[in-house]
Amino acid sequence: MKDNSQNTQLIDGKAISEQIKQEIAAEVAEITANGGKRPHLAAVLVGHDGGSETYVAAKVKACEVCGFNSSLIRYEDDVTEEELLAKVRELNADDDIDGFIVQLPLPKHISEQKVIETIDFRKDVDGFHPINVGRMSIGLPCYISATPNGIIELLRRYNIETTGKKCVVLGRSNIVGKPVAMLMMQKSYPGDATVTVCHSRSKDLVKECREADIIIAALGQPDFLKGDMVKKGAVVIDVGTTRVPSDKTKSGFKLTGDVRFNEVAPKCSFITPVPGGVGPMTIVSLMKNTLLAGKKAIYK
Amino acid sequence: MKDNSQNTQLIDGKAISEQIKQEIAAEVAEITANGGKRPHLAAVLVGHDGGSETYVAAKVKACEVCGFNSSLIRYEDDVTEEELLAKVRELNADDDIDGFIVQLPLPKHISEQKVIETIDFRKDVDGFHPINVGRMSIGLPCYISATPNGIIELLRRYNIETTGKKCVVLGRSNIVGKPVAMLMMQKSYPGDATVTVCHSRSKDLVKECREADIIIAALGQPDFLKGDMVKKGAVVIDVGTTRVPSDKTKSGFKLTGDVRFNEVAPKCSFITPVPGGVGPMTIVSLMKNTLLAGKKAIYK
Repeated sequence: MKDNSQNTQLIDGKAISEQIKQEIAAEVAEITANGGKRPHLAAVLVGHDGGSETYVAAKVKACEVCGFNSSLIRYEDDVTEEELLAKVRELNADDDIDGFIVQLPLPKHISEQKVIETIDFRKDVDGFHPINVGRMSIGLPCYISATPNGIIELLRRYNIETTGKKCVVLGRSNIVGKPVAMLMMQKSYPGDATVTVCHSRSKDLVKECREADIIIAALGQPDFLKGDMVKKGAVVIDVGTTRVPSDKTKSGFKLTGDVRFNEVAPKCSFITPVPGGVGPMTIVSLMKNTLLAGKKAIYK
Repeated sequence: MKDNSQNTQLIDGKAISEQIKQEIAAEVAEITANGGKRPHLAAVLVGHDGGSETYVAAKVKACEVCGFNSSLIRYEDDVTEEELLAKVRELNADDDIDGFIVQLPLPKHISEQKVIETIDFRKDVDGFHPINVGRMSIGLPCYISATPNGIIELLRRYNIETTGKKCVVLGRSNIVGKPVAMLMMQKSYPGDATVTVCHSRSKDLVKECREADIIIAALGQPDFLKGDMVKKGAVVIDVGTTRVPSDKTKSGFKLTGDVRFNEVAPKCSFITPVPGGVGPMTIVSLMKNTLLAGKKAIYK
């Protein structure tokens, strides 16, 4: 009998995401069978960034699986800010479009913040508009952004205890660290945790991690979290997806998480792999928001 | 020489708040001397709640000191939601009003959230509208709500180090705990702290407090924070203002903080008293937001 044995369960984001897409497809089938409107997601893609192309293609494909209509609107890198904003306003006014996203990042001559704030918050299925961010913080119904939503859903599907637990969030970005911290401290399940947010300026980051029941690593620093920074039985959610050059893959790179998996996993009660953990859940979160938009479940 | 000696500095919120009001008054004098518009704050007060009457009277008085115009609009307890919302819309449209507040709490037949969301966010000097909450979370210019803003200002005026420090926030309310946590983790000074939010469900609250460099107590539980929960040299900000019945005061109650002052103060490097600490700063924060509104410094 090993003293350090820990029954580690792998959190299978890929399987859960497939399951949720089937649940959504079933609901869409019911809606349309009853004469309701098929949800319609539009995506605006500017330029030909490799990552953005991959993400948008995956989103379009997920729409098919869910039974949504989807529209892809493409612009070259030299589109002006005003042209793009005009398209955003057109999509805001288009009654057939339930929700839409503008894939980030945008070329430097375009203000991402201006684009985000021009999107009608009622169609902002990415959940980046200040109204949706504020409503989430207050605890009101809203579109929750994809990655935090996906993390919460994984905790829920695996019935992971969060109430009163010490949850350490590594990173304070607007799209992951800050919103997931807000969600984990809300009066709800998953939530009700004692939440600590650590970042580049934190002096006691290692100590905080060692005491954590749940660690959500979203620094974007490959292999940052090491075996000796995690206590036995911890739950570790790895949000990192840095593209590290590799000669072993056809694409020439390897998606690498923030967690040194081989060292950390044996100590964990639950852990997400990279890829196949949080990643697949982000697209499913967007699909969930699109379904909510189609049903006008949050805003009329 | 005492081993446990600690040079405790009292944070004088009353003095700082008077100083800031003078700074605002000087700026208003300059604005009006140059032909600019005198800022104008309106306050809507429903009913005759003792606390609300006191707060609103103090706000009107602070306007005078700052050189603002102020308007007080009163309704009886039986005002309908629609009447109140109509007044909010009228104030939204009134070009002479730079900012306004609806004093909370409201009678139960009126939805506070609906009232808050009906206020034009550009005049929402209380900073409660989801857009202002969201913009604060993202780190964009906005109206920051009064109490968190006052706490940050006290830390700034006393040059208290926050970068990399462990800051424990007790309480997760929408008006204090959550927003002050967001501010303390932002990339700025005061901020850049490692922030932990504890609340009623937290299992290790005492341990977190004992390790904290800065404690912001906003639970609304009189005398909650005791001497043995604070480490030597800590900075303690007491946000509590519970009215505890007392036969020693003319009013029949005594404002009581969340901190057992006599036990905690000797261990602190800095501490706020109650009253005279955070309290006076909240009204000054509202004055600062009104000045920003008058100058159209945040929204056009």
